[in-house]
Amino acid sequence: MAGDSFGKLFKVTNWGESHGKAIGAVVEGCPAGLELSEQDIQPFLDRRRPGQSSITTRRDEKDQVKILSGTVDGITTGTPISLVIENQDQKSKDYSEMAKIFRPSHADFTYQKKYGIRDVAGGGRSSARITAGHVAAGAIAQKILQKSLGTEMVGYVKSVNDLVLAIDSADIDASLIEQTPVRCPDLVLAEKMIKRIEMARKNGDSLGGVVECRINSVPVGLGEPVFDKLEADLAKAMLSINASKGFEIGSGFAGTLETGSSHNDVFINEHGKVKTKTNNSGGVLGGISNGMPIVFRVAFKPTPTLIKTQQTVTIEGQETEFHGRGRHDPCVLPRAVPIVEAMAALVLCDHFLRFRVYKGLFDL
Amino acid sequence: MAGDSFGKLFKVTNWGESHGKAIGAVVEGCPAGLELSEQDIQPFLDRRRPGQSSITTRRDEKDQVKILSGTVDGITTGTPISLVIENQDQKSKDYSEMAKIFRPSHADFTYQKKYGIRDVAGGGRSSARITAGHVAAGAIAQKILQKSLGTEMVGYVKSVNDLVLAIDSADIDASLIEQTPVRCPDLVLAEKMIKRIEMARKNGDSLGGVVECRINSVPVGLGEPVFDKLEADLAKAMLSINASKGFEIGSGFAGTLETGSSHNDVFINEHGKVKTKTNNSGGVLGGISNGMPIVFRVAFKPTPTLIKTQQTVTIEGQETEFHGRGRHDPCVLPRAVPIVEAMAALVLCDHFLRFRVYKGLFDL
Amino acid sequence: MAGDSFGKLFKVTNWGESHGKAIGAVVEGCPAGLELSEQDIQPFLDRRRPGQSSITTRRDEKDQVKILSGTVDGITTGTPISLVIENQDQKSKDYSEMAKIFRPSHADFTYQKKYGIRDVAGGGRSSARITAGHVAAGAIAQKILQKSLGTEMVGYVKSVNDLVLAIDSADIDASLIEQTPVRCPDLVLAEKMIKRIEMARKNGDSLGGVVECRINSVPVGLGEPVFDKLEADLAKAMLSINASKGFEIGSGFAGTLETGSSHNDVFINEHGKVKTKTNNSGGVLGGISNGMPIVFRVAFKPTPTLIKTQQTVTIEGQETEFHGRGRHDPCVLPRAVPIVEAMAALVLCDHFLRFRVYKGLFDL
Amino acid sequence: MAGDSFGKLFKVTNWGESHGKAIGAVVEGCPAGLELSEQDIQPFLDRRRPGQSSITTRRDEKDQVKILSGTVDGITTGTPISLVIENQDQKSKDYSEMAKIFRPSHADFTYQKKYGIRDVAGGGRSSARITAGHVAAGAIAQKILQKSLGTEMVGYVKSVNDLVLAIDSADIDASLIEQTPVRCPDLVLAEKMIKRIEMARKNGDSLGGVVECRINSVPVGLGEPVFDKLEADLAKAMLSINASKGFEIGSGFAGTLETGSSHNDVFINEHGKVKTKTNNSGGVLGGISNGMPIVFRVAFKPTPTLIKTQQTVTIEGQETEFHGRGRHDPCVLPRAVPIVEAMAALVLCDHFLRFRVYKGLFDL
Repeated sequence: MAGDSFGKLFKVTNWGESHGKAIGAVVEGCPAGLELSEQDIQPFLDRRRPGQSSITTRRDEKDQVKILSGTVDGITTGTPISLVIENQDQKSKDYSEMAKIFRPSHADFTYQKKYGIRDVAGGGRSSARITAGHVAAGAIAQKILQKSLGTEMVGYVKSVNDLVLAIDSADIDASLIEQTPVRCPDLVLAEKMIKRIEMARKNGDSLGGVVECRINSVPVGLGEPVFDKLEADLAKAMLSINASKGFEIGSGFAGTLETGSSHNDVFINEHGKVKTKTNNSGGVLGGISNGMPIVFRVAFKPTPTLIKTQQTVTIEGQETEFHGRGRHDPCVLPRAVPIVEAMAALVLCDHFLRFRVYKGLFDL
Repeated sequence: MAGDSFGKLFKVTNWGESHGKAIGAVVEGCPAGLELSEQDIQPFLDRRRPGQSSITTRRDEKDQVKILSGTVDGITTGTPISLVIENQDQKSKDYSEMAKIFRPSHADFTYQKKYGIRDVAGGGRSSARITAGHVAAGAIAQKILQKSLGTEMVGYVKSVNDLVLAIDSADIDASLIEQTPVRCPDLVLAEKMIKRIEMARKNGDSLGGVVECRINSVPVGLGEPVFDKLEADLAKAMLSINASKGFEIGSGFAGTLETGSSHNDVFINEHGKVKTKTNNSGGVLGGISNGMPIVFRVAFKPTPTLIKTQQTVTIEGQETEFHGRGRHDPCVLPRAVPIVEAMAALVLCDHFLRFRVYKGLFDL
Repeated sequence: MAGDSFGKLFKVTNWGESHGKAIGAVVEGCPAGLELSEQDIQPFLDRRRPGQSSITTRRDEKDQVKILSGTVDGITTGTPISLVIENQDQKSKDYSEMAKIFRPSHADFTYQKKYGIRDVAGGGRSSARITAGHVAAGAIAQKILQKSLGTEMVGYVKSVNDLVLAIDSADIDASLIEQTPVRCPDLVLAEKMIKRIEMARKNGDSLGGVVECRINSVPVGLGEPVFDKLEADLAKAMLSINASKGFEIGSGFAGTLETGSSHNDVFINEHGKVKTKTNNSGGVLGGISNGMPIVFRVAFKPTPTLIKTQQTVTIEGQETEFHGRGRHDPCVLPRAVPIVEAMAALVLCDHFLRFRVYKGLFDL
Repeated sequence: MAGDSFGKLFKVTNWGESHGKAIGAVVEGCPAGLELSEQDIQPFLDRRRPGQSSITTRRDEKDQVKILSGTVDGITTGTPISLVIENQDQKSKDYSEMAKIFRPSHADFTYQKKYGIRDVAGGGRSSARITAGHVAAGAIAQKILQKSLGTEMVGYVKSVNDLVLAIDSADIDASLIEQTPVRCPDLVLAEKMIKRIEMARKNGDSLGGVVECRINSVPVGLGEPVFDKLEADLAKAMLSINASKGFEIGSGFAGTLETGSSHNDVFINEHGKVKTKTNNSGGVLGGISNGMPIVFRVAFKPTPTLIKTQQTVTIEGQETEFHGRGRHDPCVLPRAVPIVEAMAALVLCDHFLRFRVYKGLFDL
C-alpha cells in the first residue's frame, strides 16, 4: 500500500534511496523464454544516467545494472527479475545544514511531516535518482513489446521554456533525437535549447519544458473500460515521474478549443485497414488503443534545485534563508525522455499481458 | 484485472451498461459508524443526472439511488455498501443501424475489436452514464472527508471553448457555481457559455472545455512516494472520466514557461503555521499533500455525438456515412463538474485511509 | 482492503447481509462470448439454498438470481456481471434480546468489538447466507472451466461426525451424490448420516464433518510459484467458508505418517502420457497442477447454533445465559458441498486465466 | 500476478533461486520510526539456515542478510526495505543428468511444463531455500507486532512421523523449544525424534510431521469478514510453504467428531475480561481474532529428496530410473518452525495494519 509497486500483470517494485548502498527494482510477470542480459538494459540506463553531458548534473554514476535472479543461461524463466544498481558517487558532504531546513518546492517538508523522519542525503527516496529502476524495468518491457508487437517508443523534448518544437509528432525524424544531448529532433532548435540551459546553469537557475512521446505499432485492444483506461494508466505513470505537472493525450488541452465536427476522427479504410483520418484521439477510444499511434505530452516544471539564496523555514518552522549549492540538473527534460519512454513501456506491457488473458478464449 | 475497480483502501467496483436494467457500484472500505442514507447521496446524483437543464441531454433519468447493504438503522457497519440505480428512460429505439457502423471518436470500434461483441444500446459500458456510480460512491467519500478533515471540493467550469474564466482558483466565490446550469462562478461569463452551448446544439455540433477543481482543508501527508503520488492518482482518476484528454496540477503546462526562481514556492511562517507564499505546486510536493489547497484542471474534448452526417466505416470495414440523431449533451462540462469532484474525493479518501495505517505507530 | 473481494483475474466482490434487502456479487474478468443466463446459475443455487430438505434449516428462500449487467442477448460482453438475490424470508422477529448478548462460537463478539456496531438480524454479514453469492459466481467459473478445459468438480460429504465414507476419491460414483439430501455417495452410509443429523436436530444439538472434493481434467500448469501456489489459494478459499476449521490436499495430515519412499509419487508413461502412479500430491507439485486429479478435504465444525441453554456474556460483559431457538442447520455439511465446489471453481478459473497470460508468448 | 508478493498493507516481494547469485525480499509498508538493523533479523535466519545441526542438510550457508534500503541511522523511514542474502555454497556440480529427468514429487515436471524452461540447479525457484526471504521479512513483522502489541509466536514440532507431542499448546514450556535441534519442547520425545530422523537419513529416506504454532497476545479485531478471514490468510500462508499439505486451526479435523454442545466455546468474564472457557475456535470467530491465543497446525510431507533409486520419466517422457544423491534434509520439520512463525507474523502484521485503518475513525 506504500506506493512502490506499479503494474498488475507486469509489475515493478522499486526500492532504494539517492545516497543509500544501492537502488533497484524487482520485475514480476516477465514471461519465460525471453533472451535477457545486462546488455539489453544498460543502453537505456546510459541515456538516463547523470553526468552524460554538459547540460546535466555533474554527479557521476556509471549506473551499472546487475541481474540477480530470474534468468538462466541468458533466458528468462518466468520468475522475478531482481535488478540492482550500486550507488557510487555519494558525496560524503555535510548534510547537517540541509537536515535543519526545508528546500522550497522539494519534498523535504512533506516527507518530514508524513514520516517524522527523512533520509536527508540527496533527497533520499524522493530523489529522481530512483527512476533508474524504472528505466531498467522499462527496458525489459520495451524488449517484450518490440519482440511481440514491434512496438516502438519515440520520445523527445518538445519544448524548453518558450522554445517549442513546431514539427507534428507524425513527422519527427527519430534518428535526430540522440544527435544532441538535449534530445530535440530539430538540430537548430536543439542548439538554442542547449544554450538556454547553459545560461540557466550559469545563473544558478533552472528551466522546465515538455516531453512528447509517440508510440508506433500498438495493436487495437490495449486498455480496459472505466478505470484502467490506457490513457488513465499513462497519466498516472507520467504524473508519478519527479517534477511532472501535467499530461495530455492526442489533442489534449488545445482540443478544448475545437468543435466536435472539427475534432472527431472519422474512420477510413486505407488499403483494407481501418484507420482514422486524423488522430486527435491520440490513439485511444474509450480507454482502449485503436491502432493509431499513441501520442501524449508531459509537462515538467523547472528543477527546484537552484544555486541561489531562497527564503524558507527550518524544521521548527522559523523563517530563514537557504543558500543552494552543489550539483544539479538545470533542466530535467533531456534526462526525462528515457524515463517517460520507460514508464510508457511499463503501462503498455502490462496492458498487453492483460489483453492476452481474454483474447480468443471464446469464439464469436 | 478488468479495470472496473478503483482505490486500494476505499475501493469502488462499478458495474452496468447505459441501457441495461440498472447500474451500480459496490463501495468497500467505508468505516463503520458513519450516518448514511440515500439522502446523503441523492443531491450529488441530481447534479450529474441527465435532463437537469436546457444545455444537457434530454434523456430523462431520475437516478434514484438505493442502498442495498452495509448499513443498519442508517449507520454504516464497515461492510460493503451496494448502491443501485435503475435505468428508466431506455429508449426502445431501433439500434440495428448503429450495430452495423462505428461512430467516429466513440468507443464502438475498440470495444468491438477487443471483445468481438458490444452492447450497442447507448454505448453500453462505454457510456458516461456509468459515472453515476462514481458520483454515488464519491458522495460517501466526500462525507467521510468532510466529517473527518473538513475537506471541501470546489469544482467549476473554467472554460467552454475559448470562453475562459479569468479568476484565480483562490478567489472563486463558490456560492455562485450552482446559480447557473453551466456551473461557472462568473455569472456574466456563464450566460455567454450557455448561449454558446445552445448554439452548438442548434448546429448539431458540440463543444469542449476545462473543469478546474480546488480542494480546501487537505492535511499534510496524503499521498505515497514513487508511484502512488497524490497527483498521479488524481491524474489517473481524471483521465478515466469519459471524454477527458488532459490533466494538470498547480502551474501545469503554463509552469514550463517559468524559471525555477520564479516558480519555486518559498516557505513562510504565517501566524505559526508553515505555508508556501505561492502555490505553483498545486498542493503537492513529492507526491504528498503539503497542506495548501490542491488545485488541478481537466480538459474535456467536444462531445463526439453530433447531429450531423459523418464519414465512417461499417463493422466489415466498408466506408459509409453515419447520420447522427437522438439525444446528446452538446457540451459535457456542466455535468462533468460533480464527476470530477467525485473522482477526486475517491482519491483523497483512499489516501486518507492509507495515511491512517502508519501515522503515529512509532514515536519519533 | 476490507476482504470482500476474491481472485485476481477472475474476481468476485461479495456484498450483503443475512436479513438485508438483497445479497449479491459482482464478477469481474469473465471473458466475452460466453453464453450465460440465469438458468446457468440457478441449479447451483438450488443445491445450496435453505429449506431444500428435512436436514437443513427451515428458512425458506427461493434464492432466485438476477443478472443485472455484463451480458447482451444472453452472451457475456467482457464487462462486470452483477448478480443479485433478493432476501424474502426475513423473519421479522424481535432481535432485541440477541442484540444484548454474544452467541457462543458465533461472530457476534468479534464484529461488535471490531466495528462498535453489528447487524444483529440473522448474524448480518457474518451469516453463511452470503455464500449464495459465492455459489452464483462459482457457477460462472464452472461454466468457463467446463467449456474451456472440460474440468469437472466432484464434491461430496466424506464424513458426518464419526460416520466416515471409506471409498477412495478415485472410486466415487458421482451419480449417487445427489440421490440423498446429505450428498454422500454411499447410499447406506448416507441413510445413517441423515438419521444422525435428524437426531441431533431433535436434541437441539449439531454435528460437524468433512467435505471431500475431486477435480477432474485440470491441465498441467495452473498455480504460481512461492505465494500463489494452487493449494495455497485453495486453502484460503476453503478457510474463508463459514464454519470451516481445516484443509488438506492429497495425503494431507495422514501423509505425515509415511516415509518419503512410500509417499513419493513416481512418474510413469501411460500410453504416451506422463502421469504419477499414486496421487499423494493431490494433483499439485510445487504449487502447480500436475495434470492428476486435484483432491482435497475441508473440515467443518458442528454448527454453533443450538436449541439449548448456554452460558455467555452480555455486550457489557456480564455473565448470563442464552436460550437458543429458531431455525438452523443441525449440520452444514450437505449445503457446504456446492459452496466448496464454487470456491474451488473460483480459484481454478482465476489460475486458468493467469495461466493464459504468459503461455506460449515466446517459443522455447 | 506471478505470485511472488504476499500481503496487502505489509507486503513482501520475494525473488531469487536456489543457486543464483543471491536471494532476497523487498518489504513494503513497514512504518517509519522502528529501530532496525541486520542484528534484528539475523537470529531468525540462523534458526532457519541449512547446516545448523546433524539432522539438517549439510549445505553450508551463512545466510548473512544485508539491508540495502529503507533505514537511516538504524531507523526505518517508511520506504521499502530491500533485504539481500548472497548464495555462497552453490555446489558447482554437474546438473546435466538432473536436467534430463523429473525428480518424483518435486516441482521439476510442473515448472518445465508451465514455463518450457527451468533453473535446474538446486530446484531453482521451487527450492525451499527461498523461504530465507520469508524469514527475514517475518523478523521485521515480528518486531512490529512485539513492540506494538506484545504479540509472541511460539512454534514447535508437534510430531515427526508417529512420534506425537501429547502436551496441549497451552501448557508448552517455550524455553525448551530451542534446547534441541529438533525444536520439540518435550526433551525426551525430542531425543526420540532426532534418532528417528538420523535413522531415516542413514536409510536415504525421509520423514514428515506436524508443526504447531501458538500466538499469544493477539488483540480482538484482526481479520476481515468473508474472504480475508484471519484463518483464511493463515491457511494460504502455510500452504505456500514448501512441502506443506494441510492446515487446521483450533479443534481442526478432530473437532468434526464433536457435537455443537461440546464444541462451542462459551464466554466467561474472568476478572473483568471477556474470554472463552475453551479455545476450540483457535482464537478466531467469524474470521476475526477474539483475543484468545491463536493455535494452528501445519502438516509437512516427508521430504521428496531421497538417496535411493526411484522410477521416473525423462523430459521426453521415457520411463527411466533416477538415482538420488547429494545433500538434503531428511526431515524438514525442525527448519520449518521459524518459517511457519515468519509466515504467521506476516499475516498478523498485515492484519494489524489493516485494523488500524478504520479503528476509532467514527465514534459509536
